[in-house]
Amino acid sequence: MDHNVEGKAVSNGISPPDFELPFPDGPETVTENTLKLVELTPDPRHKFIAKNLITHLHQFISEMSITTEEWMYAIQFLTRVGQKSTPLRQEFILLSDTLGVSALVDAINNPPANGALRAVCLGPSSLKMHPMLRTVIRSPRRGGDYMYVEGRVLSMDGTPIAGARIETWETDSHGLYDNQYAVRDKPDCRGRLHSDEDGRYGYRAVVPVAYPVPSDGPVGEMLLTLGRHNMRPNHLHLSIEAPGFKKLVTALYPEGDKYLRSDAVFGVKESLVVKLQDVDDDAEARRRGFPRGGPFKLLQFDIIMVPKA
Amino acid sequence: MDHNVEGKAVSNGISPPDFELPFPDGPETVTENTLKLVELTPDPRHKFIAKNLITHLHQFISEMSITTEEWMYAIQFLTRVGQKSTPLRQEFILLSDTLGVSALVDAINNPPANGALRAVCLGPSSLKMHPMLRTVIRSPRRGGDYMYVEGRVLSMDGTPIAGARIETWETDSHGLYDNQYAVRDKPDCRGRLHSDEDGRYGYRAVVPVAYPVPSDGPVGEMLLTLGRHNMRPNHLHLSIEAPGFKKLVTALYPEGDKYLRSDAVFGVKESLVVKLQDVDDDAEARRRGFPRGGPFKLLQFDIIMVPKA
Repeated sequence: MDHNVEGKAVSNGISPPDFELPFPDGPETVTENTLKLVELTPDPRHKFIAKNLITHLHQFISEMSITTEEWMYAIQFLTRVGQKSTPLRQEFILLSDTLGVSALVDAINNPPANGALRAVCLGPSSLKMHPMLRTVIRSPRRGGDYMYVEGRVLSMDGTPIAGARIETWETDSHGLYDNQYAVRDKPDCRGRLHSDEDGRYGYRAVVPVAYPVPSDGPVGEMLLTLGRHNMRPNHLHLSIEAPGFKKLVTALYPEGDKYLRSDAVFGVKESLVVKLQDVDDDAEARRRGFPRGGPFKLLQFDIIMVPKA
Repeated sequence: MDHNVEGKAVSNGISPPDFELPFPDGPETVTENTLKLVELTPDPRHKFIAKNLITHLHQFISEMSITTEEWMYAIQFLTRVGQKSTPLRQEFILLSDTLGVSALVDAINNPPANGALRAVCLGPSSLKMHPMLRTVIRSPRRGGDYMYVEGRVLSMDGTPIAGARIETWETDSHGLYDNQYAVRDKPDCRGRLHSDEDGRYGYRAVVPVAYPVPSDGPVGEMLLTLGRHNMRPNHLHLSIEAPGFKKLVTALYPEGDKYLRSDAVFGVKESLVVKLQDVDDDAEARRRGFPRGGPFKLLQFDIIMVPKA
């Protein structure tokens, strides 16, 4: 409140507008008055956003003839979304993801650069990462199928980038990130490595599996109401940084997953869909550090970085 | 999460759609895919609302070219609105109120009936009321100017309604509702009374004062950003129930308040603006229970009820 508890309630210090407003007796006047007050906004970008937001919000309510009960449901839904969020779980990001808004913001702000790798929005599971220095990210506990990821980090003209820092993470074969376990003694299925002098990188992983976004909150309820599944197709996350280049956060999606074209968070881009090669050769497997030999899946992928500025 | 913690992550049981979607590589495809998935919604009203909501939301983002930083700010803002809400304070209702949406929903759902009293939306301060049986609601502790409220409860054809239950509440002369005080030993500036056999009611109150909506939360920040004051003009709340009539929740706004036409929550309707008469007559004052005599303000107002069905 705007007051010390035993004192007087005081205003925020802003005066009433110096223009006259009619009484908001009908729906049209309510909208018109709300928009007229936007003219008071000092910052031009804020004013532009507020005007457009109020226009769309009021149009939506009016066009739908939203009932009082529906609006109260919306209020309570949004409140629950906020209250479900914690430092480890962001239900509003999940809402934005599942309504296609995160992907839209991403597509608007990161249009494709010639030949460069496409960025993707960060899902809620990747908010908290504690990578460690390893070139093996496959889980020793949860099994899964062998996968080897290799390629080169290159600039757009094909020059190798040495010493690029790659962070990578995925769910284990149970479809869970390590931070989704109650007990998490050390990072699992996460790693950090650097490209060598030829720009090459390579690490052992597991073949990713499709997994659900959290469904025990209001967003999970919403997806059920909308008749939509809550699955993400299998994928591997990558975040790459190199001096002089823009940081790239992306993910690779092995082809063939049944959720590939209906990702619950609209994250898949065609250029990020990759083919896993079957390699059934013990020597090739052992050379890549799989002690029991083959078979294994090979994911070969070159990472193309965009220079800064 | 959709799993027991040591088990496997499982889906919500809904299959991928049986129609093909293109990869959402650009902004238009993201929006189109999100809308195509809405076709899966079983309930027609839900489908209609989801379609329109997504259309407006995506149009807003696209038209504004909302940046990643702006969208993250919005996510964090909405999260804070949810987390600021408690059983005693609903910051999302306040957000809806200050963006004119509550008044819009109210205007759509409660159009004026011939001659009947206009309803108003409930502000966040009225969520929790503990009225007691009194016909004096003026604060014994906080002073304020004498006001007497009187009138009749009538049906639309002018027939008096006996035994109508009136609940009424207002801030004290400091602009605070009793539940805004840290210590609240008993209800103050609230009361419940019934109309007599002629439909008449009357009670002692204080002249209401303008007061601010809470500004220590994200909505308060938003109003500052928008250059808007956070004041409500002075008013008196009324909630009236009588068998056979629709429950009426409304408020009366004494004329002359400098915030009358720019109410922070767009609650004032012209028919709810009332005139306070100055009465400077000790006999009239004492007859209405003011022990020190006049002067006092007289608010005369007939409450017109709408029959059910």
